[in-house]
Amino acid sequence: MKPTAFAGVALFAASGAFAQTYQRLGGCPSLGCVFPPDQADFLPGQHFDIRLEVHSPVNGSEARAGVPDPNFKFTVAKKGQAGVPVAKFFDTEEAELENWQFSWYEDLFAEDAETASVVNVTSKAYRHLALYEPGEYEAILTYYGEEQTVANWLVRDVPKKRRAKNVVLFVGDGMTTNMITAARLIAHKSINGKYQTKMQLDKFPVLGHQMTHSMDSFITDSANSASALYGGHKTTVNALGVYVDSSEDPFDDPKFELIPEIFRRHHPNAGIGIVSTAFLADATPGALTSHTRDRGEYDHVIGTFLEGLTDYEWTDFDGPDVLFGAGAENFLTSEDAPRDYYQLFADKGYSLSLNKTSLEAASNEDRALGLFAVSNLPTWLDRNVYQTNLKELGNHPDGSGRDAEDLPGLKDMTVKAIDILDTRRREEGWFLMAEAASIDKQMHTLDYDRSLGELLELDDTVRATIERLEELGVLEDTLIVVTADHGHGFDVTGAVDTVYLEEQEDDRDKRRAIGIYQASGLSQYTVGGANALRYSEGVHFPSRWDPRYSLHAGTVAFPDHRENYKVHKEGPRTPAEEGAGGVYASYKDAVSGFLINGTLAPDADQGVHSLTDVPVFARGPCQELFGGVYNSIDIFFYITECLGLAETKGGQHHNDGHRTSKN
Amino acid sequence: MKPTAFAGVALFAASGAFAQTYQRLGGCPSLGCVFPPDQADFLPGQHFDIRLEVHSPVNGSEARAGVPDPNFKFTVAKKGQAGVPVAKFFDTEEAELENWQFSWYEDLFAEDAETASVVNVTSKAYRHLALYEPGEYEAILTYYGEEQTVANWLVRDVPKKRRAKNVVLFVGDGMTTNMITAARLIAHKSINGKYQTKMQLDKFPVLGHQMTHSMDSFITDSANSASALYGGHKTTVNALGVYVDSSEDPFDDPKFELIPEIFRRHHPNAGIGIVSTAFLADATPGALTSHTRDRGEYDHVIGTFLEGLTDYEWTDFDGPDVLFGAGAENFLTSEDAPRDYYQLFADKGYSLSLNKTSLEAASNEDRALGLFAVSNLPTWLDRNVYQTNLKELGNHPDGSGRDAEDLPGLKDMTVKAIDILDTRRREEGWFLMAEAASIDKQMHTLDYDRSLGELLELDDTVRATIERLEELGVLEDTLIVVTADHGHGFDVTGAVDTVYLEEQEDDRDKRRAIGIYQASGLSQYTVGGANALRYSEGVHFPSRWDPRYSLHAGTVAFPDHRENYKVHKEGPRTPAEEGAGGVYASYKDAVSGFLINGTLAPDADQGVHSLTDVPVFARGPCQELFGGVYNSIDIFFYITECLGLAETKGGQHHNDGHRTSKN
Repeated sequence: MKPTAFAGVALFAASGAFAQTYQRLGGCPSLGCVFPPDQADFLPGQHFDIRLEVHSPVNGSEARAGVPDPNFKFTVAKKGQAGVPVAKFFDTEEAELENWQFSWYEDLFAEDAETASVVNVTSKAYRHLALYEPGEYEAILTYYGEEQTVANWLVRDVPKKRRAKNVVLFVGDGMTTNMITAARLIAHKSINGKYQTKMQLDKFPVLGHQMTHSMDSFITDSANSASALYGGHKTTVNALGVYVDSSEDPFDDPKFELIPEIFRRHHPNAGIGIVSTAFLADATPGALTSHTRDRGEYDHVIGTFLEGLTDYEWTDFDGPDVLFGAGAENFLTSEDAPRDYYQLFADKGYSLSLNKTSLEAASNEDRALGLFAVSNLPTWLDRNVYQTNLKELGNHPDGSGRDAEDLPGLKDMTVKAIDILDTRRREEGWFLMAEAASIDKQMHTLDYDRSLGELLELDDTVRATIERLEELGVLEDTLIVVTADHGHGFDVTGAVDTVYLEEQEDDRDKRRAIGIYQASGLSQYTVGGANALRYSEGVHFPSRWDPRYSLHAGTVAFPDHRENYKVHKEGPRTPAEEGAGGVYASYKDAVSGFLINGTLAPDADQGVHSLTDVPVFARGPCQELFGGVYNSIDIFFYITECLGLAETKGGQHHNDGHRTSKN
Repeated sequence: MKPTAFAGVALFAASGAFAQTYQRLGGCPSLGCVFPPDQADFLPGQHFDIRLEVHSPVNGSEARAGVPDPNFKFTVAKKGQAGVPVAKFFDTEEAELENWQFSWYEDLFAEDAETASVVNVTSKAYRHLALYEPGEYEAILTYYGEEQTVANWLVRDVPKKRRAKNVVLFVGDGMTTNMITAARLIAHKSINGKYQTKMQLDKFPVLGHQMTHSMDSFITDSANSASALYGGHKTTVNALGVYVDSSEDPFDDPKFELIPEIFRRHHPNAGIGIVSTAFLADATPGALTSHTRDRGEYDHVIGTFLEGLTDYEWTDFDGPDVLFGAGAENFLTSEDAPRDYYQLFADKGYSLSLNKTSLEAASNEDRALGLFAVSNLPTWLDRNVYQTNLKELGNHPDGSGRDAEDLPGLKDMTVKAIDILDTRRREEGWFLMAEAASIDKQMHTLDYDRSLGELLELDDTVRATIERLEELGVLEDTLIVVTADHGHGFDVTGAVDTVYLEEQEDDRDKRRAIGIYQASGLSQYTVGGANALRYSEGVHFPSRWDPRYSLHAGTVAFPDHRENYKVHKEGPRTPAEEGAGGVYASYKDAVSGFLINGTLAPDADQGVHSLTDVPVFARGPCQELFGGVYNSIDIFFYITECLGLAETKGGQHHNDGHRTSKN
């Protein structure tokens, strides 16, 4: 989506958000703004831009007379030393002064009254900088005479010795401990309270928790959180690899360098792999290479996969070795995307796979692009159990309008990616991000069965990854991290007698079908017998998805919807739909169910992300770094430490062109 | 509460449960029952009873002709060896045959129709046994000729070397990772996404997850889960230190030995401390010494605190060194409790404290009983912020009907307990359990503010504990474990403009006040300024509990209730109340709020426990054992390992009287 004309800061379209605690500009409570803001951390040598703004609110609670200060000063220094003007400090050219205006609403009352607050802005940007010397820095913006905004920056003292050859980062989008517990319950047999098999995640030696909150809101989306994981900087909802300024341009915001960029800059022959079950222009894969405050700028995202940034001087990035997922819609030419990306990737030597058979047959020597559906990949449950739902989707990645067929899953894509990376990049090593995207997507639509299916597919993929790395003889050289980018407020509180529920007429009587505590009984999803689903040795999914006694599952925030606690055999759920004056429960989504009125704004048609810390599972070199409780950005610092990507040298530098990588 | 005449297995009264996946008898899907059941683990030398039952259902889906087998056989052997008749194997007397009848409902339809299934039973019990040799055992019940129930038992090979002098086990009742995240958000200041202070829990070096499910249901209560933590055996909802048989007597069920009993048996001068903010007869403190399938047998619980078990030959337990908490109602004489426990404890040399001043003044040399309210202790929020709520409670622990005054909190009780234990038991060491009980109790009634206040009090107590242990010079000898016994499906998904919500008339319009993602904004609970609450250095609670922008918090399962997302200043919430034909939302609980219809049975007046794995934080000797993901019973095995309580010797033994401890 495009940024709104008002705020300069786009709200995530899918969230159905009514703004509430509006901010003039996140990260800037005063009238002088510094990005990177106070409390920012940097990897030694990590490239970044600086954006400075001085605000002069015309009206509203902060109104002041006069224009925004055109003569603001900005100095930088190691803590305790005298401030040096920024251009001199970084040995770069003085920036030109920019001017613009933006407006915002101070609260819901102002929005209802359409009383916008207008702000005039003066600004400068200094681009492509780096701090090499570990320690504390003080960056001071002085404006309106004596007003100051002080940003304390920390260049972390990160050990430089490389300890891992390869890194696999699995992102279970939206995955929480609660969901892992539920997935274990439906897929692994337990006798008298003792599980007879283990999830792969449960076998990891090190467990941590990471805090997912944004810089300027305590709930994050997947763009912002992925930027923290890959770039070490928390930013604003919807932003990819940038802090968000108040200008209208979604591409001029101050950038920070990302793991694939840093890794390739240090090791031109390092391998990069990107795998997702989402459309590849989506936030979690896109955040590996993109720099825009608007995750909806899909053509920008695909462009950075292909060739890195072209609109600003920045780190060279010549495309990943592997790019597997879905979302052919953003690769095929369209009004929004005039370039023929299939051709452009082919021109750069990429093989192209449009189904599982060609994926498996693709050369391990060549770079590889694989796209398996027009939009998101159909879920594991539909691909493996309710396959009739794959019909009439018109989702073939060739854009012909026929159905995609012969679909791979996360495991197929990930294992193939490893084969290619190992073949091409054994010498300098590689970094692979693999995302189980629809844990989140199906959680949004309250389709817990499909979401847990995706989680179990992730677990199976981790298992297969360890197995393949061991076969390749590189398991002990490879750091494997499995984590999430945020949570959903999901949990299970009992079981439901779905037969009893269906036979009751009244909504309240239907609720008598819900059993709690001792009456939750034992998981009926793992019971064998006739019609039970069977899987290969070591692979664990439910034996049945439609037991009479199903899970009593829910989330803490939801739209109006109906529940009958039965698996949706006819395809993914649509719990709520647009009606007169807002969104209402979909009757046909759960005809036999009872109504639950929502706890979100009345335009919400799906659930939302939650606050909870998410788990981190680690094994391999540096695994000990990942224990305990820490911030999401620490994942970036631990991974870059493990790959030996800290670059320390005397002084500070403007990174003119791409010469830094050749120093 | 008393067990029902029907099931022989009581449902937790407070849960408002409608039974759903009924079971004839948990842990016994066949007609021959063995307790401890298949998959049971034992600490070498841990005492336990065996209960065998043979069922003959008279009617219902399992109906069979004839009487239950009076000639069943039961053998035990190391795996791979020939089975030895049980009496011979344990060198004990043959048990007498017992007979009884019980009945149960097979499902909700049967309950509605009042069609009970009746079962005739033959049974034997062998009591006070132990297995000393690590390894796998096979216990086989043979009945009705060729029918067999095989129980595989494992005596864990636990290292015998003691590594910790002392253990402090903190139980945050019902505490989840999600709640810790929310507590951090409201009590710790963050600047641009970086917290400026840390929770004490966040500083722990080792993090784990434990699975809380029951033996025979995937949701647990606090009795069952505490029995797993303290005894290493998962059992049935409501059971304390026993497996649940089908007899009517709530005291004849098969027992297993608990940490305080084992510790004292090995070290007669070991210290034991029990601290809770609940009434002390409640499950989490009670499970340390009690053996009954019914947590509602409060007089039994208090009796075991005083003198251990008296109705069966069992491990000597002569009372803890410290017993601090609430629930004077079960110590004062009453119809249910004819004994004057205040006098009986005094007769054994206990000091008695009825308020904070006398608690602090109590001698560190003597055993100490402290009771500070008639029922549960008022919450931290009421004791510290909304103190007018302490008036007219008539809860003085002297039973006079006047208000309790001068109330201590969890921190006061815990630090005093440590002083006493260190003074009395420095030589042989000590074990202390301290429970933050009202995290759970306030979560049940959807009073998230009060629940998070209790969690923050726990965190502050852990901080003060570490400080005091360091002052005493015993920090490095002390294993500290902080965990929970189960979860609630709680999370935070945004912020609410409470002013806007109040001004809207319509329920759906009120929901527009809810901000998600970027519109969640920043925590307003830590904002200083006028009227901000202030705390001592290093102590972190919210600066304000009633910000305009409050937390949008919820649970996944709840009764009918109303929400306005404001702190309840007038006292703890009562979200739902009895009405015509069931329970309905309380209007006066949130007059300005909107209605949310429930997702639990229509007689539910509160929320319920959830499935999620709960966190474990560990520091000190053996901390490394507590990383990763494991079962709740493993906490028992890790603590007993760390205290060196495994007892291996050749052969197996009936523990005649209490002689074992003198071997």
